[in-house]
Amino acid sequence: MQVERMLWRMQKVTQIRELRQIIRAQRRLGKSIALVPTMGYLHRGHLSLVEHAKGDGVFIVMSLFVNPLQFGVKEDFSKYPRDLERDAEMAEKAGVDLLFHPDVAEMYPQPVLSYIDIDELAGVLCGTSRPGHFRGVCTVVGKLFNIVQADKVYFGQKDYQQYLIIKRMAEDLNFAVEVIAAPIIREDDGLAMSSRNVYLSPVHRKEAVVLNRSLEKAELDIGNGQRNARMIGKMIKEQITQESSGQIDYVEVRNAEDLTELEEIKGKVLIALAVRFGTTRLIDNKVVEVKENV
Amino acid sequence: MQVERMLWRMQKVTQIRELRQIIRAQRRLGKSIALVPTMGYLHRGHLSLVEHAKGDGVFIVMSLFVNPLQFGVKEDFSKYPRDLERDAEMAEKAGVDLLFHPDVAEMYPQPVLSYIDIDELAGVLCGTSRPGHFRGVCTVVGKLFNIVQADKVYFGQKDYQQYLIIKRMAEDLNFAVEVIAAPIIREDDGLAMSSRNVYLSPVHRKEAVVLNRSLEKAELDIGNGQRNARMIGKMIKEQITQESSGQIDYVEVRNAEDLTELEEIKGKVLIALAVRFGTTRLIDNKVVEVKENV
Repeated sequence: MQVERMLWRMQKVTQIRELRQIIRAQRRLGKSIALVPTMGYLHRGHLSLVEHAKGDGVFIVMSLFVNPLQFGVKEDFSKYPRDLERDAEMAEKAGVDLLFHPDVAEMYPQPVLSYIDIDELAGVLCGTSRPGHFRGVCTVVGKLFNIVQADKVYFGQKDYQQYLIIKRMAEDLNFAVEVIAAPIIREDDGLAMSSRNVYLSPVHRKEAVVLNRSLEKAELDIGNGQRNARMIGKMIKEQITQESSGQIDYVEVRNAEDLTELEEIKGKVLIALAVRFGTTRLIDNKVVEVKENV
Repeated sequence: MQVERMLWRMQKVTQIRELRQIIRAQRRLGKSIALVPTMGYLHRGHLSLVEHAKGDGVFIVMSLFVNPLQFGVKEDFSKYPRDLERDAEMAEKAGVDLLFHPDVAEMYPQPVLSYIDIDELAGVLCGTSRPGHFRGVCTVVGKLFNIVQADKVYFGQKDYQQYLIIKRMAEDLNFAVEVIAAPIIREDDGLAMSSRNVYLSPVHRKEAVVLNRSLEKAELDIGNGQRNARMIGKMIKEQITQESSGQIDYVEVRNAEDLTELEEIKGKVLIALAVRFGTTRLIDNKVVEVKENV
C-alpha cells in the first residue's frame, strides 16, 4: 500500500482527445468517473470536493480552466489568480488522478455560436450584477460534462446559485451525471474560502469576516423565532455597513429550492450576499431550514 | 441467419431510465450506438437514414418524439401527423433495434428552464419565420444526445439548416457524437419526402413539384455558367410564382458552410427555399459545388 502510494502519479492532460482516451480506458477497468471542475488557484474548499469524490473504484478528474465566457468585459478574467505548478502539487497530494488543464484555444477552437442558457434561476442574485455570467458557466460546464462524461460532479456550496443552476441544467438537458454540493469551507476566522481572497488588502481581509458573522447572526435570529425575511436582510445590511467598508451588491433571503422571493421565513431558506471590498467582490451564504413556525 | 432474422424483434421503450439500461448493456456487448431522431410519421427519407446507420456491431436507436418546444404557438404541433403503430412496423422492417417514443411528460417532467441556443446560424432562413424553432430543436436534440449517448447521429439533408446547426452545436458543446447528413429522398415526381406532404390537397400536391423543378433548373443554370446569386434566386421565385399558387416564405442562395449571404456563386453553395401551399409550409434545398469560375 505504502509502495503503491509512492508510485502513484497524477496525470496532467491538456488535450480533450487524450482525456477521452484515458477516461475510456478507466471505464473499461470498471472505474466510475468523478469530476471536480475548478478555475484553479486551489484552496481547501476545492480539496474538500476531492475528499467528497473519493471512493472505491473512483477515478477523480479535476478540471482547471479559467473560463473567459463567464467573465464580463469589465471583470477580472485576465487578473484572475493562476498558479498551475502550485495547483498541480496540491491536487496530486489531495488524491486527484487526472488534472485536465486545457488552454482557451482547446476549449474554444472556433467562435462559440452555441450556448446553454437558463431562465429565471439565472436572472436573480449574482445574475443581476453579472449578466451573461451563468450562460458562460452553463456552457463551459456542459462542455466539461460532455468531455469527461463523469458519473458524479462536485460543486462547492459557496456558489449556491451556481450549484442550483447546474443541477437544474443537468436535469433539464438529461446530462447523465449526478450533481453534488459540498459544504462551504471557511478560514479559521469564518471567511469563506475563495481564490479571490488573495486580492484583499490586509484591512479588507480583516473586515471581510463580517460577512460570515452577519450570516451567523441571522441564523441565530431565525433560531430565536425571527420569521420576517425583510428584517433579516435589513439586519445583515446594517451589520455589514456598520462593521466594514464593504459595498453591498445584494443581501437576499430566498427560497433555497427555486430562489423565489420570500416574505416569511419558512422551509429551506437561502440567505445569500455579495459585497465588494475595494475592487474585490466576495459572496457568501447560509442555508437555514425552518421545520415549523414556533 | 434466416431464423435469427425471424426471432429478432425491435424493442419499444418509452422510459428514459429503461433506455439507458438497454444502451449500457449493448455497450458492454461491444456495440456502437447509432441514433436516428425523428418526429415520426415515417417516410422513405427516415428509412434511408436507418440504411446509412447500418453496419457491423451497430445498435440502431430511432427516437420518435413530436417536440412541442420547436413549434411556434400558431404552428402545427397538435395536428402534426402521428401514427405510432404504422411507424413501429416501418421502423422494425427497416432494421431499427430500438424505438424510443417517450411522451411529453417523460421528456419535460418539469418546466424547462434550460435551453441550448445557437447564434447566427439560427437567425436566418427558417429561423426568420420560425422564431424559437431552432432553440427548441437544439434543446431536444441535446437531450436526446445525453439520453442515448450515441456514437453517430443521422439527419436528413432536407433540413439542411438544422443539420448545420446541430453539427455546430455538437462541436461547440463537445458532444461525443458524429453528426452525419444523408441525401434528400424524393417522390418519383421529385417532391422532397416530408411528413407534412400528407397535408397537401391534390391540387397543391401536384403544384409542389415546382420546388424541386426550380432547384434543378437553378443547378442547370449554374452548370451553364450563371454566377449571380441574386439572379438565381429571382429565377426560382419567378418559376414558383408562375407555375403554382405557392406563397414564397424565402428563396435564398447562401454559403453552405456558414449560411452567410453571397453575391457570387462560388465554392459550396446552398440554394434553399420555403413555400406555403395553403396552410402547409414545405422546404427544399440543393447544395451545389462550383469548383472554379469558368
